[in-house]
Amino acid sequence: MKRAVTFTEGVRTGQARTGLLSTQHGEVQTPAFMPVGTKGTVKALTPVDLREAQVEILLCNAYHLWVRPGHERVGALGGLHKMMAWDGPILTDSGGFQVFSLKEFRKITEEGVRFRSPVDGQYRFMSPETCVEIQETLGVDMAMALDECIEWPASREHVAASTARTTRWLQRCLDARKRPEHTALLGIVQGGFYPDMRIAHAQELVEMDLDAYAVGGLSVGEPTEELLGMVETVVPHLPKDKLHYLMGVGYPSDIVEAVIRGIDLFDCVIPTRSGRFGYAFTSVGRLAIKHARFSDDSEPLDPACTCYTCRSFSRAYLRHLFQSKEILALRLISLHNVVFYQSLMSQIRDAIREGAEALETLRKKAEIWTAPMPE
Amino acid sequence: MKRAVTFTEGVRTGQARTGLLSTQHGEVQTPAFMPVGTKGTVKALTPVDLREAQVEILLCNAYHLWVRPGHERVGALGGLHKMMAWDGPILTDSGGFQVFSLKEFRKITEEGVRFRSPVDGQYRFMSPETCVEIQETLGVDMAMALDECIEWPASREHVAASTARTTRWLQRCLDARKRPEHTALLGIVQGGFYPDMRIAHAQELVEMDLDAYAVGGLSVGEPTEELLGMVETVVPHLPKDKLHYLMGVGYPSDIVEAVIRGIDLFDCVIPTRSGRFGYAFTSVGRLAIKHARFSDDSEPLDPACTCYTCRSFSRAYLRHLFQSKEILALRLISLHNVVFYQSLMSQIRDAIREGAEALETLRKKAEIWTAPMPE
Repeated sequence: MKRAVTFTEGVRTGQARTGLLSTQHGEVQTPAFMPVGTKGTVKALTPVDLREAQVEILLCNAYHLWVRPGHERVGALGGLHKMMAWDGPILTDSGGFQVFSLKEFRKITEEGVRFRSPVDGQYRFMSPETCVEIQETLGVDMAMALDECIEWPASREHVAASTARTTRWLQRCLDARKRPEHTALLGIVQGGFYPDMRIAHAQELVEMDLDAYAVGGLSVGEPTEELLGMVETVVPHLPKDKLHYLMGVGYPSDIVEAVIRGIDLFDCVIPTRSGRFGYAFTSVGRLAIKHARFSDDSEPLDPACTCYTCRSFSRAYLRHLFQSKEILALRLISLHNVVFYQSLMSQIRDAIREGAEALETLRKKAEIWTAPMPE
Repeated sequence: MKRAVTFTEGVRTGQARTGLLSTQHGEVQTPAFMPVGTKGTVKALTPVDLREAQVEILLCNAYHLWVRPGHERVGALGGLHKMMAWDGPILTDSGGFQVFSLKEFRKITEEGVRFRSPVDGQYRFMSPETCVEIQETLGVDMAMALDECIEWPASREHVAASTARTTRWLQRCLDARKRPEHTALLGIVQGGFYPDMRIAHAQELVEMDLDAYAVGGLSVGEPTEELLGMVETVVPHLPKDKLHYLMGVGYPSDIVEAVIRGIDLFDCVIPTRSGRFGYAFTSVGRLAIKHARFSDDSEPLDPACTCYTCRSFSRAYLRHLFQSKEILALRLISLHNVVFYQSLMSQIRDAIREGAEALETLRKKAEIWTAPMPE
């Protein structure tokens, strides 16, 4: 069977590696970062903006698009790519994470998850089969299997039962596929924060010979060391000729650390959400544009940046727009942050090619973007 | 003295005329429409968007920029053009209209207007001299004199007293100018809805030999016939070699009717505000994107339009974005409406060149954009 996506490893430095993901909507240089377009739009930005920012792949959310406007409607409009005018690759998260976040509004059984949608108050039921049907109808390049996201901390018993169900659900996802040559299916390694259970689950998934592998159930409240420890535990058990995706991560330093542990793909709302809250990532750290000290500052957000925002506007103007609650502020800072993240990924790929020393330099540098914000 | 702006009449059909406004920031083909960038941004759009929409001149608001971020700050940042990265001509409204709208929060004396700013709660005082100083410091191409906007209806006695004061304030504005060769000063014809007083005021202003002339105090709640009647009364008394600007107008039909009566320049928030409320102007009328009938509509907003929004996205997608409260919806519909208005002005200029019949055809067609919205 021809796979919907293939992955070729490039240069390797330790566990870190460059690579090339090939899809029917084009190639992606890895390590790569996916801006998040939950509802079929990366907030405030157009596909043209994203292309100019060197974005090669987007993440959208199957659950959100299922609830509104409805996956069949998207399908009838020619699929998600056509509807949102993005002709590059798209990965959809299943929305399992969002459904599980509903807590008191959802009930999990072996069959699937019943929940009440916050959008329309209607009861809905997502099974592994529904999950695959939605994503294949959206026509995306990569679909995520339905999994149960386990909270942190959790008992061994609970993790064991939940992870076993995730595996059974994954098999049902595989069996439900109708367009495997168009939409890849990614399995998600769970196993909580128990290394032996993580490894056992990774090995189970590898035996199922999936299109690509995700590490899930992380970034759920645990310390960063725990997160990175689990990545370090799992990745050596994943195939080298398949993509490794770390879901929902993260800050630049988390990304660099995870790359060093063998991760190829990331997604996170941080660049766009930070942008809408007036926080800009710059080559010397983060900056909160609301601060009065920028009132008369004629410098761009980041003098080292060549994005449209930095080529055109001063911090003083952006602060004025932000304080005046102008939409343009959110758009311009989001754009800058997306460019920043893409540039970071490019620097990471360069560092891997250059070798261990360059990667270590970048790892140390990345700490400036996680340090507490200056007041 | 070299004037900051000059105007050359082109083709004339009845009172309607094409023309060319020359400024230090480039030329403007008239009749022209200025999108409104009150606080130094046309909401949700960049200068690049505006150029792509064929916009040649913007309107900003001196009062708003004075209150925030402050005209001296804008001046220190290199002026309004540089701050907002718009290198074409800018006209600033004085903000007199906004100050007078504050009603119980302002007090008018011969000296000027004292008011309490809604932004910071501070008391401020705007005199004709302040008004000129603000706009010259912003460095705009065209400044509006401080005038008193009279409500409708108003007694002859009140109109006479107010209009006389507007003339005295205009003289003070003229006397206060320090950069007349950089920033043109426009006088505003008042006179309420009394034709004889309108004519008398126009004649007074013409004797003052101003850079250009505006018709003010209209679109304040009166019926459209009253508005157009006043334009028809005033324009024949204005010099042919000076620009005629009708402030705050309006819907496409108002614009066409006013062009027929000799107006060269317009501004209005309608295209952008409508866009943010989900209303699109199209070649067959207006459209409210929220309506359920667009849920599965794969057509663009206007199949006859070539803007980025219409080239790229369906009504169904735009409705989805709007219903999902996505910023991108506001941006894309605003962009479309700005392009629509610029295209309308281009059609008007073509019709004037073609002759009376073409202009009459356009006049009739424009009614579809003022008819009540379909439910």
